[in-house]
Amino acid sequence: MPRVSQDQLEARRHEILGAARGCFARYGYEGATVRRLEEATGLSRGAIFHHFRDKESLFLAVAEDDAAAMVETVGRHGLVQVMRDLLDRAGASNDTAGWLGSQLEVSRRLRTDPEFAKRWAERSAAIASATRERLERQREAGVLRDDVPVEVLTQFLELAYDGLVLHLATGRPAGELSRVLDVVEGAVRRA
Amino acid sequence: MPRVSQDQLEARRHEILGAARGCFARYGYEGATVRRLEEATGLSRGAIFHHFRDKESLFLAVAEDDAAAMVETVGRHGLVQVMRDLLDRAGASNDTAGWLGSQLEVSRRLRTDPEFAKRWAERSAAIASATRERLERQREAGVLRDDVPVEVLTQFLELAYDGLVLHLATGRPAGELSRVLDVVEGAVRRA
Repeated sequence: MPRVSQDQLEARRHEILGAARGCFARYGYEGATVRRLEEATGLSRGAIFHHFRDKESLFLAVAEDDAAAMVETVGRHGLVQVMRDLLDRAGASNDTAGWLGSQLEVSRRLRTDPEFAKRWAERSAAIASATRERLERQREAGVLRDDVPVEVLTQFLELAYDGLVLHLATGRPAGELSRVLDVVEGAVRRA
Repeated sequence: MPRVSQDQLEARRHEILGAARGCFARYGYEGATVRRLEEATGLSRGAIFHHFRDKESLFLAVAEDDAAAMVETVGRHGLVQVMRDLLDRAGASNDTAGWLGSQLEVSRRLRTDPEFAKRWAERSAAIASATRERLERQREAGVLRDDVPVEVLTQFLELAYDGLVLHLATGRPAGELSRVLDVVEGAVRRA
């Protein structure tokens, strides 16, 4: 058996993640069967599950990548910008519909599978931290309202994010959501 | 066959709805099997489905009753009060956990079943109307902010409601949600 370098392993892992992301986005978690994951990656199930223990681990690895990207956007532009991007993409692409759907499938799982809930919570905590840190910087800069603790404002923004995910994932029209996000943004700012 | 009066039919229908509500709340939509619905109502499936075409119709009838109660609370005390009540109940009762779970199960269905989505949309529209009407009365009374259209504020409150449902339905701790709802309420008021 030829020796495979760490770099090659990483590159293969990265390829699988990219293809799996597209597959989950397109078909949702349940709909992304192992057969479809094989087609998307061009690999056998044996090869895929050599890198990821099972479909759940693969999904969580994709979700961790998503969370890392989200943490970066939150740090630079804030959680409201993440929401604006999501709203733009939801109108434009079918892939986003699948991604949103998979977020709701996850929600069901969270209620019934404590181990899954624990792994998912780490991902959510990273996003919450990034949101909190950004709000703290804004408070120091004097642009944040100062009559409400940063922790409450963090959870307010998360509530709005969750609301947006549920709204869009259920396929409801965007309506005035862009202006709603202006209200959300205004609600954390100094008047 | 004895003749059954309209009143008797209504009473029986009402009994079934009450028992089914408890069953859906306890087990969620999927978990409320026909067998469990029989146990909860003390009736055979034949008797139940004499009054409601199928399980989906029964669930939607329960949801319509819930929506009617919600419309009344919204009219009197506003959608934020509905959220406060939901937050209080989520901490106190297992039944609310089941109800919340069934709301998410519905969300999945909304994406894939246009007929179901249409029937559910009527229910949501009634709640949106009640919210809008209350905000219009508040604007006339001069207590609402006047720099944002009522329609946008209506959708802002609905976004917060959706966020609360998703947060609580996934079993996350309430955290500072009570104070978050103060921020939500403050965001629609005149400063």
